[in-house]
Amino acid sequence: MICDNIKINENGNLEFAGYDTVELAKKYGTPAYIMDENKIREKCRIYKSAMAEFFGGESMPLFASKSLCFKRIYEIMREENMGIDVVSPGELFTAVKAGFPMERAYFHGNNKTDFDIAFAMDNGIGHFVCDNADELEAINAEAGKRGIKQKIIIRLTPGIDPHTHAKISTGKVDSKFGAAIETGQAKELTEIALSKENITLDGFHCHIGSQIFECEPFCDAAKIMVEYISQIKKDMGYEIKILNLGGGMGVRYVESDPEIDYSANIKRIAEFVKAECEKNDITMPTILMEPGRSIVADSGMTLYTVGGCKEIKGFKNYASIDGGMPDNPRYALYQSDYTVITANKADKPCDYECTIAGRCCESGDLIQEGVKIAKPVRGDIIAVLTTGAYNYAMSSNYNAICKPPVIMLDSEKDYVAVRRETFEDLIKCHK
Amino acid sequence: MICDNIKINENGNLEFAGYDTVELAKKYGTPAYIMDENKIREKCRIYKSAMAEFFGGESMPLFASKSLCFKRIYEIMREENMGIDVVSPGELFTAVKAGFPMERAYFHGNNKTDFDIAFAMDNGIGHFVCDNADELEAINAEAGKRGIKQKIIIRLTPGIDPHTHAKISTGKVDSKFGAAIETGQAKELTEIALSKENITLDGFHCHIGSQIFECEPFCDAAKIMVEYISQIKKDMGYEIKILNLGGGMGVRYVESDPEIDYSANIKRIAEFVKAECEKNDITMPTILMEPGRSIVADSGMTLYTVGGCKEIKGFKNYASIDGGMPDNPRYALYQSDYTVITANKADKPCDYECTIAGRCCESGDLIQEGVKIAKPVRGDIIAVLTTGAYNYAMSSNYNAICKPPVIMLDSEKDYVAVRRETFEDLIKCHK
Repeated sequence: MICDNIKINENGNLEFAGYDTVELAKKYGTPAYIMDENKIREKCRIYKSAMAEFFGGESMPLFASKSLCFKRIYEIMREENMGIDVVSPGELFTAVKAGFPMERAYFHGNNKTDFDIAFAMDNGIGHFVCDNADELEAINAEAGKRGIKQKIIIRLTPGIDPHTHAKISTGKVDSKFGAAIETGQAKELTEIALSKENITLDGFHCHIGSQIFECEPFCDAAKIMVEYISQIKKDMGYEIKILNLGGGMGVRYVESDPEIDYSANIKRIAEFVKAECEKNDITMPTILMEPGRSIVADSGMTLYTVGGCKEIKGFKNYASIDGGMPDNPRYALYQSDYTVITANKADKPCDYECTIAGRCCESGDLIQEGVKIAKPVRGDIIAVLTTGAYNYAMSSNYNAICKPPVIMLDSEKDYVAVRRETFEDLIKCHK
Repeated sequence: MICDNIKINENGNLEFAGYDTVELAKKYGTPAYIMDENKIREKCRIYKSAMAEFFGGESMPLFASKSLCFKRIYEIMREENMGIDVVSPGELFTAVKAGFPMERAYFHGNNKTDFDIAFAMDNGIGHFVCDNADELEAINAEAGKRGIKQKIIIRLTPGIDPHTHAKISTGKVDSKFGAAIETGQAKELTEIALSKENITLDGFHCHIGSQIFECEPFCDAAKIMVEYISQIKKDMGYEIKILNLGGGMGVRYVESDPEIDYSANIKRIAEFVKAECEKNDITMPTILMEPGRSIVADSGMTLYTVGGCKEIKGFKNYASIDGGMPDNPRYALYQSDYTVITANKADKPCDYECTIAGRCCESGDLIQEGVKIAKPVRGDIIAVLTTGAYNYAMSSNYNAICKPPVIMLDSEKDYVAVRRETFEDLIKCHK
């Protein structure tokens, strides 16, 4: 199994976090997202303790809440003493409603509106991650109106391409995010920030991409960032305190993906960063990282019921499920790999090749093509693994399909963190 | 301009359906979908009258509500005497709430659950468009329980590939939808349907794809379908009454797309179908078509406000807007073309090449790359044209972003058909 919270139980059913998934499907209906709360906490603690041990000081992980955003998640992040990053006033609002301490929140994004900036300050945001000169002006103006000095860090593009999928690779010079070091625009933006009287420049941020399995791209980026910090110190006499290395550590979706030792990776990156700081004669900054996927992806799974199945002679076999791209658009968007299991036949041989088709009226609504699973028939339960990140977060109501609930599983109980949408919810905004 | 409802007014602003888009942006905020109600009605009438004139009898267009689903749209379809197709109980529920007469509704989809089937019968659905053998059994069983005879048509795949984007091409043999004529599976399914005592087989359906600009693929499909109907008449002595040719007529997104004369196309297809029916010795069936995109796409437009703009030296220029893939995922999904206009500078030369970036924390969140528009700055209004179909319908809350409102524009007034989501709406299902 690709994750240690997955087993086959004595009934031959798929077990997740100690719960029989077939029983969960009966209890809550399908489709349903189920989440292993202990695994989420375990992942937070791996990041927390590794970053404390190897980077030291006030270094900490910020949960990238774009990967999964609902109130209960922010409560868990608060309890685990994580920081968070948010990318919209909606995420910020949700975190506030969950009682998350906003001084540990970083507000990201390539386009913060004037409303967003004011709303974030109203709610005591810790730092803005500033993306461009327009935004610096807007933040400075709003802080001026309030008579405060707003803390920011600036997002830079170090020019690293970690060779992941183009759509999730973000550290290149040609990116909608941040200012490029290579073109001199990072330096211009830094100068502007330092010239603003209502802004405190605390540091720099970079994010090189997603689903990265090696340490090298992080070290490559860190090297460029440390050299940049050193250069700014020399040129402007200003030494920043925070270096945010972004997120992007990979997650196993399928057996062929490598296993990652997050703690060992953090250790290696920390050793590298320390050496680079020494070499460049700067004080080791507080290091932040932004794990999202690697905190919640394999803590989640989606359960579906199989509907129509068909075998097209000479072509493919299809099994249709009662969800699809509305609850998981990642295959349609990125042709993402997933592991699929017939949950009520988990002990049977995986010898039937088929395409798992969603229920939407769209040919591209597939969850996975050509997987080998125990042959499914109408009424069987299909589990799609590793759906904790970017599934609920990206879900839509395409075809007027209600969003599934999110069911949390902990050691003592299973409970509803997000209830299933109703038909009435679908039309709540219709006049 | 790509559509006759678009102009530049005396203030140099973009005008849509006789309304100043910059004024609309001020009044309703951005992002906002705006829709030309008269254009929607005009398109319905083109289909209605062309189908009545050229196909005759009870032939009619069914609005494909997956392209745009909210209560007001179904009211308009009811007023225009259109039929509809629905693909989920959520669409069906919305139509019922709008008072749509359900005998003119066809229930589509490759996976209707037992709940869906019962719910549709509860609400007096006219026809099911039956996709596979499992579903036939389920419909027959549910109809039997109720002591009714349920009308259906069967979805077939004629084996036509209209060479549009693979994700929206659905008439090929290898498809999650329907039964293939070529493999003999269509005939098997027809035999099963005719053997069921609680089912009335009224006809056949095919849908070859989307964004088709020529008549030939429709004629090619119709030829195969008519020959199949004739074959069934010979083999089983049963002549069906309905032939549903599906949707798929193209829409102009950019100047280089051809203009389509829908009425002339329908006339040509009708002449072809009539000749084929005579040749194959069958009575001309009632013809149905399923326009969705071609009814609503160019009746819609999305207005955004520009935020951060940047020019990466030696690379690209970016203009970030206050929406993106949550309100329009079509570029991320299909790299769809769109026409973009700086609405408050519509009279200025379009000489600035830039990429329109959404506000999501994702590199792939772009609305269009390398468009030439009047140079935008923070605060300008950007209009993205032809967004009436598959934009609101596919919208998500990714990054916890609220869905925009849908504003309807008619000859007398502008009004809210779907209100903007609030932050409270975002957390309504969170426990």
